[in-house]
Amino acid sequence: LGSNFHFRTEILKHVLTTNRIKDIKSLQLAKFRKELGQFVIEGEKNVRELLQAQPYSSVVCEEVFAETVWLRKNRDTLPRSTHKYITEVTSRQLEVLSALTTPPPIIAVAAIPEEKIDFDPDNELVIYLDQIQDPGNAGTIMRLADWFGIRWVFASPDSADLWAPKVVQAGMGAFLRVKTARIDLIGLIDRSMPVLAADMTGQSVYSGNMPKNGVLLLGNEGQGISVSNERLITERITIPRTPRGGAESLNVATAAAIILSHMSK
Amino acid sequence: LGSNFHFRTEILKHVLTTNRIKDIKSLQLAKFRKELGQFVIEGEKNVRELLQAQPYSSVVCEEVFAETVWLRKNRDTLPRSTHKYITEVTSRQLEVLSALTTPPPIIAVAAIPEEKIDFDPDNELVIYLDQIQDPGNAGTIMRLADWFGIRWVFASPDSADLWAPKVVQAGMGAFLRVKTARIDLIGLIDRSMPVLAADMTGQSVYSGNMPKNGVLLLGNEGQGISVSNERLITERITIPRTPRGGAESLNVATAAAIILSHMSK
Repeated sequence: LGSNFHFRTEILKHVLTTNRIKDIKSLQLAKFRKELGQFVIEGEKNVRELLQAQPYSSVVCEEVFAETVWLRKNRDTLPRSTHKYITEVTSRQLEVLSALTTPPPIIAVAAIPEEKIDFDPDNELVIYLDQIQDPGNAGTIMRLADWFGIRWVFASPDSADLWAPKVVQAGMGAFLRVKTARIDLIGLIDRSMPVLAADMTGQSVYSGNMPKNGVLLLGNEGQGISVSNERLITERITIPRTPRGGAESLNVATAAAIILSHMSK
Repeated sequence: LGSNFHFRTEILKHVLTTNRIKDIKSLQLAKFRKELGQFVIEGEKNVRELLQAQPYSSVVCEEVFAETVWLRKNRDTLPRSTHKYITEVTSRQLEVLSALTTPPPIIAVAAIPEEKIDFDPDNELVIYLDQIQDPGNAGTIMRLADWFGIRWVFASPDSADLWAPKVVQAGMGAFLRVKTARIDLIGLIDRSMPVLAADMTGQSVYSGNMPKNGVLLLGNEGQGISVSNERLITERITIPRTPRGGAESLNVATAAAIILSHMSK
């Protein structure tokens, strides 16, 4: 009983004011994420991973909002040390807070980490998103990077923001393990660094002779790689289309999946 | 001048009544697609492909709605024999007709073809979608099938409808070349047919020993393969996670991309 009482006081100590709701909702826009240095994590799986990663993650949890009934059922499965972040809310309040059409029972706010760019282009493969527009694609690529043990996903300043709710959602926890930065490609690389891109004229992914390091450039869904970055490519990779295949191209995330699987073989 | 006049009369012969708008909008729902035997194709690339495939495609175009200014610029680039399908509409009318947030300049209505199931399981690979829910995933898998020359994508009756606007959109013209049918897996296969599925315990896609025929089963985004279909699997395939990788799983379309690329090598 005592411990239960203690828990309750911890959970209820925050109050969700109208201003706070406004602040959290504003994090759906890149402008305010940048201004406030925060982003929103939605859904049970993502928030559980965030809480389990505390306090050693570079992504620091700041607040969690959980629906009353869900919280009653699940509070004992959340790390005890993270209960202090939790505010109990109604499902109506979660509907207001959520960017999703089906609001999840739990939403968290965390600080966007600032990471020092540290990778070894001679022995490591990193990904560069060149004007990727669709947040679903960006998130799926983050998830792929996470699967294939890629530490860094960089993005051009005009790519989808990797801290956007739909990117975080599609990434399935990748934001905890894969580091990101927005930077021009020219500022990221030096002359000695291999820059790889998928292209109709490159060597086949089936050649068995795939590079294992450098920067893998992934281009915009419609336009492909931008003209200025095109000049920086040093190696071209082709995914051969089956002779009887009819599609003109592949979705950027599925093309990335195929290339990464052949590079990590 | 004469030919231009002739063109104009052809283009304007249809009138877009309120009832017709209601009918076309209703095609956003599976129920009415089934009832009317029609579906909607949105966007320049998809509609161009549909028109170029006439009159020999199994997907028969019935009507096209094109925005006035766009049509003036582009009518000469559309096959002359398909001008008879075109109704000139305002951008306001397209906004009403479209299921997309950014309405395209051209939308078509076509008949859903009924195809006779004809595949050779001994020499051909087909895909089966087991309760795939996300239309973006279903469309991306259709596009993959199209790239890898797969003729059939089957879906369980509780999968996303493959004629839904978002599936057609993400499929990038695949609906013209990849045939589909909704059918229970048990009704599709016989005892001699290999049924493949991605699984943690299967042989690695890197083994160089991948099957080249049968039914590739792709499971639901959250739950994986359904219990009843699980029993029908005859071969299991694994995509090895890089040892330092953190993700729990891959998105179903990216997993399919990796498996298909290793099967078609």
